Order: sequence, then structure tokens, then C-alpha cells
Amino acid sequence: MTATTKSPWGIDRPIGVAVLGMGNVGTEVVRILREQPQDLQARVGAPVVLRGVAVRNVDIDRGVPAELLTTDAEALVARDDVDLVVELIGGIDLPRQLILAALNAGKSVVTANKALLAEYTGELAAAAENTRADLYFEAAVAGAIPVVRPLIQSLAGDRVDRVVGIVNGTTNYILSAMDETGADYAAALAEATRLGYAEADPTADVQGFDAASKAAILASLAFHTRVTAADVYREGISRITEEDLETASALDCTVKLLAICERVVGIPGEPLPEDGGKERVSVRVYPALIPRKHPLASVTGAFNAVVVEAQNAGRLMFYGQGAGGAPTASAVLGDLVMAARNKFYGGRAPGESVYAELPIAPIGDTPTRYHVNLQVEDRPGVLAKVAGEFAKHEVSISTVRQEGHGEGARLVVVTHHALESALAETVTALANMESVTSVTSVLRLEGTEE
Amino acid sequence: MTATTKSPWGIDRPIGVAVLGMGNVGTEVVRILREQPQDLQARVGAPVVLRGVAVRNVDIDRGVPAELLTTDAEALVARDDVDLVVELIGGIDLPRQLILAALNAGKSVVTANKALLAEYTGELAAAAENTRADLYFEAAVAGAIPVVRPLIQSLAGDRVDRVVGIVNGTTNYILSAMDETGADYAAALAEATRLGYAEADPTADVQGFDAASKAAILASLAFHTRVTAADVYREGISRITEEDLETASALDCTVKLLAICERVVGIPGEPLPEDGGKERVSVRVYPALIPRKHPLASVTGAFNAVVVEAQNAGRLMFYGQGAGGAPTASAVLGDLVMAARNKFYGGRAPGESVYAELPIAPIGDTPTRYHVNLQVEDRPGVLAKVAGEFAKHEVSISTVRQEGHGEGARLVVVTHHALESALAETVTALANMESVTSVTSVLRLEGTEE
Repeated sequence: MTATTKSPWGIDRPIGVAVLGMGNVGTEVVRILREQPQDLQARVGAPVVLRGVAVRNVDIDRGVPAELLTTDAEALVARDDVDLVVELIGGIDLPRQLILAALNAGKSVVTANKALLAEYTGELAAAAENTRADLYFEAAVAGAIPVVRPLIQSLAGDRVDRVVGIVNGTTNYILSAMDETGADYAAALAEATRLGYAEADPTADVQGFDAASKAAILASLAFHTRVTAADVYREGISRITEEDLETASALDCTVKLLAICERVVGIPGEPLPEDGGKERVSVRVYPALIPRKHPLASVTGAFNAVVVEAQNAGRLMFYGQGAGGAPTASAVLGDLVMAARNKFYGGRAPGESVYAELPIAPIGDTPTRYHVNLQVEDRPGVLAKVAGEFAKHEVSISTVRQEGHGEGARLVVVTHHALESALAETVTALANMESVTSVTSVLRLEGTEE
Repeated sequence: MTATTKSPWGIDRPIGVAVLGMGNVGTEVVRILREQPQDLQARVGAPVVLRGVAVRNVDIDRGVPAELLTTDAEALVARDDVDLVVELIGGIDLPRQLILAALNAGKSVVTANKALLAEYTGELAAAAENTRADLYFEAAVAGAIPVVRPLIQSLAGDRVDRVVGIVNGTTNYILSAMDETGADYAAALAEATRLGYAEADPTADVQGFDAASKAAILASLAFHTRVTAADVYREGISRITEEDLETASALDCTVKLLAICERVVGIPGEPLPEDGGKERVSVRVYPALIPRKHPLASVTGAFNAVVVEAQNAGRLMFYGQGAGGAPTASAVLGDLVMAARNKFYGGRAPGESVYAELPIAPIGDTPTRYHVNLQVEDRPGVLAKVAGEFAKHEVSISTVRQEGHGEGARLVVVTHHALESALAETVTALANMESVTSVTSVLRLEGTEE
């Protein structure tokens, strides 16, 4: 059934499409497939025909002819006249099984399923390779914003050093609201839920799971290394307080949930280890301070943006709507047109590229910068003692500010880059110091040159 | 010699590359080809071998083995072991002839030659189609920033309504400098020349020819319609004065040289004509006021950015370095890797898509907004007379501000959207009014919602 094994010119007949799932994105994809057949045909070179849509319940009126709807996704995927499968079900087990069935039959697949990809890209890509089918997933990261294709194709001849992105609209909406209105986390979350930016169960977003899946995908593409969600260090935003945002403002910073993928060798600003340092990949998701003048700082509300730093290209930024039915459908349709063209003309999308096989750096070995707020006893020598604790852990201090007097005396410390493990140990030690009443806030600082 | 006519699996041997031209970009491309063969091989799937570099003078030491250099570009392109040609000569006639020779022989071509593409894409694409070769040109627009590929591929299933970009670094450097330092045009140009941002003969940049070529390419891709440089209305920046920048600042705007590609039907905010209005494409390059809060306003110095507005994707922005040897080489290498993969695996890049064949709207039929500064006689009733002249041409006024007294009396008028022809006629009529001493500045206003 695969095209490319028959002729270099592909299959010379309408391209049949099956859509699995009809949520926000599926509904838009089905609408466009049905409303714009001429445009799609002109762009593909052959008619693109919707063969069927798999849904859980065929009795709901979806404005789609009943004969197109089916609950039997497996049978739909297996149909002889289906060449392309668009998977928009979500979840892991069922879509995994359906995508594998499609790929094993030589059918190309377009998916937006970041959670599945962050776990099983290796397996899916191998199945695609085996039958020379395509596996496209632009919509899995940052919705309509082309990030996957630029990383795979446009930067194919460059060396990417770092990818930093705001890739979750829910958390960005919440943090923007806290920054702009002074709301606390609970109030901002409630507002996001009311406006439909947060789901009823917001765990996947606010605990950073969604961003971690996307970070795994971005890192895999950027570094030609297989990175799964389990490799991603992850912290959510639920412990961010309005005081953290105030602290950020005082430093001319804001707080963003960042997905950070970077090559690490040693500590920035310090000499490399004697062996030259082995290059590793650090992939992490956490809320962090970034300077207001950083290009990501002005990305507010539910928008997404990804900054890519490459050796030759320099710093690139991609910005747009990271979620929503229509924007995500745009990304799905772009993939669908390309996959259909390949079916028709007999080409193939680039497969998985994991030749570099870089090891993953554990979070403890990753260089970061800390911003620490301490409540301290108002006694002479406290600053010296606190500074001594940093020095003991070989953490170099960038600035210390002493504020207030008496019971409200505070120290605000910003470090240079140091290993995360040393920073974490320093904070633990500080919390146990007699003259430190409490550690009121610890935030990482990203996006500085230093 | 073409791969795809032999087998769907492509040619199973090293991919031979010829580089034509060794300026800034060519030098970087050659360096990367020679220094990173393993990376390129891993990404292509086959070794990529530099067969030769065509230069005008082989006696200059370029750090490249002499046996790789030749002055005979034609013979190099024709070599049996050359599968891919990278054209970085510049100019029109010679590269056109060499690219056609390559494509006619079934060899794929990567070029950064915007001037050539803006004129001859139709001819080149037809030659590529004929032998099923690839024609890639990501580097022709906005250097390292992936814009061409997102328009062709990522948005293949969407409908693009507008593309607005800052696509010329030289003019953006000059206008940024005028905005930031208050320098006049001549001083800013001199500084740009000193720093290497402007060429000795800056005509192509400052008169907007370079941006117009890029606008033609962007419009062709965005609207699936063949647009050539001759279709682009063009004004350069050489008449922009420091007063224009001051005026802009007073309006909380800045001045940018914009490449604007948009679908036009009627006038924004006014009822459509009775026939529903025929959709046309407007492509134009001129300096214009844009609000400081517009995403393009913060693109300063030699940077480039392109905003794409699509029906489903919404507003996307791409930002980065639009010129320079290494960034442009990054785009060339990305194309080269994809073209080499296609040679090896037997795929093909999407060809030219011009099915929509939309007509081009002449500048007079394009809706724009004007900002007009008038020196007027300080007499009662002047404002009414001036306003009457706008009304006579059916141009609706958004704001009028009266400034100064006596000889320095000024009127600052900002219009709503109106047809460019009506606006231009209004300005001519104003210049001839007795009570108007002079029209001191006319600037278009872009990037407003209205």
C-alpha cells in the first residue's frame, strides 16, 4: 500500500485522510478539509479527500455527515483508501497503537501529541523508517508557530547551542496576570480557568508536564539526540508567590516558565575541567527570573515564543499563538499538505536524527544562577557569615543587597553561574544558619549574558 | 544524471557540491563544508563532498586548496560528480545561465540571489520542475531567519492575509540610528558605511530595491501568485529627515522601511463595493510610521523580522539576523542538507505554487493611511479649509493637531484608511492651497488596527 515502493512518482489518485479525534483541533481540521478542497488540491497536486473521522460518540451533532463518523478508529486507519492519518485524540496508549498501525501499513501520520512523542518518538520513527512513511508533528510544540520544521530543516546545516522557550500558554497567562495585576497564584489560576486558558484539572500545565514534553521534543531536534520526558528536570509554577513577582520587578525582571535546552560543558565564566569537559545536554523546565529587556520577557498572555541560538544563524526568535483550535489546525494542515505531497510525488520527510547521542546532564551538574531572599537577624556580621556560606560551596556572588532593619532585615543575593548542586546545598546550609530566620524565596535567573 | 529518474531511493554515493562565488557567504559555506563533513554526513545520510569553488581570481589565497578553485563556473556545474550547485555570485545574467544549466542537467540548486529570483523564479522553477530537481532559496530573504520554508511548508494549509517585514538591515540600521541619536540621514548612512552595514554604493539598499526583491519573493509564496520586482511599488529612505523621526516620536511611533504584502479588497472600515470586491495583491516597500508598541518597532539595528498574518495561525513573527556571512551561510547549509537528502533518498522539495493567480493592485488602488505635516498661514479658518480639501477627496480624517503661531503655525493631520490615489491627490491639492505655505512631511502610517 505504500506509494514510494511502487514508483518514484508516488500514488496517482486522490489522497485519503482519516482524522482521529474531534476536539478543538480536530473540529477545525475537519472543517478546513471539507471547506477548502480546491486550495488543498492546488497545494498538494492531487485531491485530498476526508475518508472518515473517528470519535468516541457518533450521536453528537458535529455538523459532519453521519457517514463520515465512526467509533472504530482501528478500522478507519486500516481502510485501503486511507493514505494519511491525523491523530488528535490525546493520551498515550490508544494513539500509540493507532499511529503504529498506520505507520506499519506505510501510511503517513500527522500528530500534535506531545506527550506521546516525548515518550515514544524512537519507536514511532523506527516504524516510519521501516515503511518509508512520514511522521510529522509541527503542531506538538508551540501550536501554529513553526519551530519543529525550522529546527529539522532550516537549521540542518547549523549547530544549535541553546533553545529557550515559553511553550505553555496557560502558565504564561497566569504569570503575566500575576505580574500585571499583582494577583496571587490562586486568583490568577481561577481567572485563567474562567477564560478557558486553563483546563478543569490544570496539573499538566501548572506542574510543567506539558512544557517538559515539548522541551524533550525540542531538545531531541536541536541536538540530534533522543531526549524523553523522563530526561527533563521539571518544576511547576504553583509555588510562585506575588512576592516573587515583586522581587522580580525590583530587579527589573519578570518570572516566566521556561523550557531550556542547552549544551553544557563546564560552568560559564570558569575554566574548563582538565579533560576539556564532555559535552552534555541539559533539558529543564522551571519558573525563572528573566530580565525585562530579554525578548521572551515581553511575551505575555497565552502567547508562546521560542528563542533558538545557533552557531552560524545567531539568535532567532519565533513568536505566535501556541494553542487553540485554529492555530494548531494551521500547523496540522501544513504537515498534512506536505505529507500528502510526499505521497503523491513520492518524496519523504526527514526521519529522526539522533546520531549525536549526547549524554543528558543531571540537573545537579547544570550551571545556573540563583536569586535568594533571606530573612536575617539584624546583627553586625550576618552578611559576612552568609557570604562565607556561599564561598564554602564555591558559589561566587554577583550582588548582595541588605534591606530593612530589626525583625524585617533582609538579604537579597544574586549569584554568578554555579553548579545547581552547589547552589542547592548552599540554600540548605543557609536555612540551617542561626542568623538566618528563613529563606523566603529562591528563584533561578536565566537569560543573562554574564 | 538525475537521481529520481533512476530509483525512488536516489543516488547511493557521495553527494558532490559546487559552490559558485566566494564572497562573505560563499567563504562561510566553503568553510563549513570543509570543517564539518561528519555532521553533514550524519544529517544527509551520505557524505557531502565539495567538488570545487568557482571564483573570479584563483590567485588570491583563500585558505582553500588550489585544486578546488576554478574560474570556469560552467565547467564546474557540468561535472558528472556535481549533484548540487550553490549559487552565491550575485548579479543576474551569469547566475541565471549557470542555474539553468544546473537545473536542466537535473542538478539541484541552492541560491541566495533575491534579485534573480524576484525576476526569474518562473523560468527557474519550470526548469526545476522539468528535471525534478530542487530549487531552494531560504537565504534569499531575511538571511538566517526561516521565512521561506515556513511560508511554503508550515503554512501550506492556511491562508496568509498579510506579510509585513523589515527585510533590509542597512536601512534598518540607518533609521534606528536616526531614531536613537537624532542623526540626519547623511550622517547615519556614513556611520553605516564605516561599520560595514552599508556598501560603498548603497543604492540597492537605501532606494529599497533589495527590499522590493524580497517583497516579491514573499508575496509569491504567501499568495500562490507570481509576483516580480516590477510589481512592487517602491520608495527608499533617502528623503527621510530627522524631523520625520521627531514627528514620529511625538506620535509615539518610529519610522521603518517596510516590505508589505497583503490581500486587498476595498478599504478597511468602509463597505465593500457592490460586486463584493475583487481580491487583489498589493506589494509595496516604503518608509512608514509604525506605533512603538507594534512588534516590528522594537526591531533595531541591522536585525530583520517578518510578521505573517494567516487566517488560522493568527499573527506569527520571525526575528533574527537578516544578513552577514555566517547567518546567511546557515540558511544556505540548511537548504543544502535538504537538497542533498532529496538526492540521496529520492524526494523532492515543493515546487513553485502560483495557482491562485491573483491580480496585482496598483499602488493607487491600495488603501493606506497618511500622516501629513503642513506649514500654514496663521489665520482663522485655515483648519476648516484644509479639512475641506480632505473631504473633497473623500479622505476621512482621524486626528488634526494645530501647533505654533504666526510664521511657524503647523497642522498635523492623520487620516483614516483611504485609497492611495485619493491621498496623493489630496496632498497635491493641499500644496496648491493659498493658506498652506508648504507640505513639510508626508509619511504613511502602517501597523495600526483601525
